[in-house]
Amino acid sequence: MSFDRLQDKINAMKNPSVVGLDPALEHVPPQILEKHYADKGETLDAAAAAVCEFNFGLIDAICDIVPAIKPQSAYYELLGPAGVLALKQTCDYAKAKGMYIICDGKRNDIGSTAEAYARAYLGTVKVGGAELFPFDVDALTVNAYLGSDGIKPFIDMAVKHDRAVFALVRTSNPSAGELQDKLIGDDRMYAVVGDLMQEISKETAGKYGFTRVGAVVGATYPEEAEILRARLKSTFFLVPGYGAQGGSAAEAVKAFDANGHGAIVNSSRGIIAAWKKSGEDYVVAARNEAIKMRDEFREALGK
Amino acid sequence: MSFDRLQDKINAMKNPSVVGLDPALEHVPPQILEKHYADKGETLDAAAAAVCEFNFGLIDAICDIVPAIKPQSAYYELLGPAGVLALKQTCDYAKAKGMYIICDGKRNDIGSTAEAYARAYLGTVKVGGAELFPFDVDALTVNAYLGSDGIKPFIDMAVKHDRAVFALVRTSNPSAGELQDKLIGDDRMYAVVGDLMQEISKETAGKYGFTRVGAVVGATYPEEAEILRARLKSTFFLVPGYGAQGGSAAEAVKAFDANGHGAIVNSSRGIIAAWKKSGEDYVVAARNEAIKMRDEFREALGK
Repeated sequence: MSFDRLQDKINAMKNPSVVGLDPALEHVPPQILEKHYADKGETLDAAAAAVCEFNFGLIDAICDIVPAIKPQSAYYELLGPAGVLALKQTCDYAKAKGMYIICDGKRNDIGSTAEAYARAYLGTVKVGGAELFPFDVDALTVNAYLGSDGIKPFIDMAVKHDRAVFALVRTSNPSAGELQDKLIGDDRMYAVVGDLMQEISKETAGKYGFTRVGAVVGATYPEEAEILRARLKSTFFLVPGYGAQGGSAAEAVKAFDANGHGAIVNSSRGIIAAWKKSGEDYVVAARNEAIKMRDEFREALGK
Repeated sequence: MSFDRLQDKINAMKNPSVVGLDPALEHVPPQILEKHYADKGETLDAAAAAVCEFNFGLIDAICDIVPAIKPQSAYYELLGPAGVLALKQTCDYAKAKGMYIICDGKRNDIGSTAEAYARAYLGTVKVGGAELFPFDVDALTVNAYLGSDGIKPFIDMAVKHDRAVFALVRTSNPSAGELQDKLIGDDRMYAVVGDLMQEISKETAGKYGFTRVGAVVGATYPEEAEILRARLKSTFFLVPGYGAQGGSAAEAVKAFDANGHGAIVNSSRGIIAAWKKSGEDYVVAARNEAIKMRDEFREALGK
């Protein structure tokens, strides 16, 4: 089962972290960009090729110590169709290196359109007599504002092809609370969403007890993470907000259960743009920061 | 201003409808698919090329009578990177024919990631010394669950490049109410979201009085549309759910203001897949259905 595979990888590497591959062009070393601009001009194709090279180097640098990557779709769409091709190539490359791929797309829609997104990322499309996997990632982030029939097509596809989703529950941004903290009866909106996600996926739990619908729970709101961890015992958490966004390891560990399971913490800029602070080669800087993050969580979790 | 241009086009054509280009492969006539499969095999590239040909024919058939198209991103992502290229080619083709382009992506994220989505669809990315428009559409649908700082980057980009967004407020699906109808104090969640969207965009109104943040308000819930129309006087509505999803013109007109302005109603399958019912050529069938829909709204609005 998808989250079992993820938890197994985390346990084997003693590292509950995921590297966010959010390749804004200002994070790509200039020598990589310039090489591709020289080759293809200052075009979206050149930028996308540079992003691919950058990502492949990062993946090589971390794949033996970090269990998963989380490419943020926005930074690939930013480079147009060529960027989306770079997203696909990045996912394929990391998959071939044994990594678990969480595509951060926050997709959402209803009915047959939600099914199309589910097929695109977690399943297959029928083209004539062929069944093809368009993006073929392990998990996709989704937004639950449309209710359960916006999520069920993703659950169905996840069950069919052994994948998973993470639904936005409590995000890590300053204005998250404007809607997510509103009281609905005695409960906060985010708790209502969390309950709903756990309920509609309850038949899908694997050996660690987690269902196929995980939750995005920001590290910048440790109190909410603690409340949700106690409340959503069978929900795997994806925790953004560590590092550059201000969350600490001590805060982020509140998302883990008593066994130290059930959560994975993301760092993006802190790792992929580490070269800008350290002055080292970007692959060396990224690996060093990934090890530092891993060791912080080993200590915080007592592992 | 973006919604002024849209309203002007609607007025000129006396047609407040938008055609949803949601090219699931079962809606593409078999002869188009087979031609491309013969050329490129049963591949995602072939399917994407077939979708392009299908869309170009639809755009040719409707561009003199329908002011706008709404491609649903999911059906393009379903064909992988080649499909996203077909989305871009479709948008460019329709734009060259003078149509207003609403990309239905329901994108959402925070901070610099929301800005990346905003740049991708509504703005530019800097590649070396060049400023390039990755997708270059007129408007994008967005999901507001992350609060105002998830929407502000889209507003900023919309102001800078004269574009617009539509935020999900009340969707057209059966389970929409699970979260959207929850009571927050005395208000429904959807009304709270609608108020927030109008408030954060209030400085951006154009000559018709509508701000750059429109709202998606489903035709399948005419009571909610009526409540929201009365409440959100400076919000332009995008109305899905007409036709195949069950909403009628009489219900959808509740989304318009007293001048018959401020809303555009989407039909997808009812137009693009009309050939399956009528047995006509798909371009003839689509044009006939588009005229029928236009005339229903002319009558319902007394225009």
